[in-house]
Amino acid sequence: MVVTRSIKIKTKGDTDIHNITPDIKRLLRESKLTSGIVTVFVPGSTGALTTIEFEPGAVHDLKEAFERIAPRNAEYRHNGTWNDGNGFSHVRAALMGPGITIPFKGKELTLGTWQQVILIDFDNRPRSREICVQFMGEV
Amino acid sequence: MVVTRSIKIKTKGDTDIHNITPDIKRLLRESKLTSGIVTVFVPGSTGALTTIEFEPGAVHDLKEAFERIAPRNAEYRHNGTWNDGNGFSHVRAALMGPGITIPFKGKELTLGTWQQVILIDFDNRPRSREICVQFMGEV
Amino acid sequence: MVVTRSIKIKTKGDTDIHNITPDIKRLLRESKLTSGIVTVFVPGSTGALTTIEFEPGAVHDLKEAFERIAPRNAEYRHNGTWNDGNGFSHVRAALMGPGITIPFKGKELTLGTWQQVILIDFDNRPRSREICVQFMGEV
Repeated sequence: MVVTRSIKIKTKGDTDIHNITPDIKRLLRESKLTSGIVTVFVPGSTGALTTIEFEPGAVHDLKEAFERIAPRNAEYRHNGTWNDGNGFSHVRAALMGPGITIPFKGKELTLGTWQQVILIDFDNRPRSREICVQFMGEV
Repeated sequence: MVVTRSIKIKTKGDTDIHNITPDIKRLLRESKLTSGIVTVFVPGSTGALTTIEFEPGAVHDLKEAFERIAPRNAEYRHNGTWNDGNGFSHVRAALMGPGITIPFKGKELTLGTWQQVILIDFDNRPRSREICVQFMGEV
Repeated sequence: MVVTRSIKIKTKGDTDIHNITPDIKRLLRESKLTSGIVTVFVPGSTGALTTIEFEPGAVHDLKEAFERIAPRNAEYRHNGTWNDGNGFSHVRAALMGPGITIPFKGKELTLGTWQQVILIDFDNRPRSREICVQFMGEV
């Protein structure tokens, strides 16, 4: 059985990080499914998904890591393609990946207690995102 | 319902990047499935999959990022194991991951307009790759 | 059909890397499923999963890469939150991601011959991990 839903989020861009775990948990309850997987996927090439302990320190540290891995002010040829200056956003998003798949059983996600699912918006401007949240499994 | 197909690609190696979105879309149409997930997976430990806006600038920028993260000419112990000189390929591929799972609904992938699925071949020589493309869902 | 199992592993921490492929293959045989996906997921925010050629050289090289990407002794604000000194572990785990999804067909994983699934424990102390291994597919 497949249940496809979505979450709408307004982001500020600039590696803006949102905890979307409560939304996924609510949609899982509403799906009536008991065991299976949820695939969360952000359309677009400047967003990404992962998990982290969602507290301000770790969130800050992750942002700093991206600045080391794909610095905002390095040279990016993509910036010459559209002149929108978000070459770093594309590289960061491609490195992280746009989706995550999480098992659930007994109607509960298999996340750890201190582990939250986050959307990272790497774009250099505010965006309206509609994230796909698709459940597949058994009632 | 599960439909397992594959895509064959000849790569040039050296972080060679291919857009495989048209192949996945064609296989999705042929599968007759309406909603569910496609899992794309590259067997082998020197290939990886992600998404990007597939234009030459962003593709170039992503290659440059790998050179920062796992430089081709750094010291790699793997090079001493087989003497094939592709230690950097293994590290890059392990960091990126060999697969991606994408939801579809209404017979359409949930990709953004400017978002393409890419195979990255990190090996240091040409390779023939057979990528697994498996659909699971409802007709 | 969904079959949810788990693997228990005691790790030493400090980017400790374990080959869990034999366990996944055994659980796949026991599941009686023929084709579908297995989603492997580590609860907790300091563990991650990927694939690599599991030989000591490549495993060493991957550990070295993490030291470049998120050095153990850099400044991490997370360390001020709990004083447990594992800020680097959280950043590394968020960058890698906690799960992997692999197709199987004909009762066999679609892994390459030299490609193994690994658990990486980034925490800075020994941990007992219970990894979720969930199969979904057709008998």
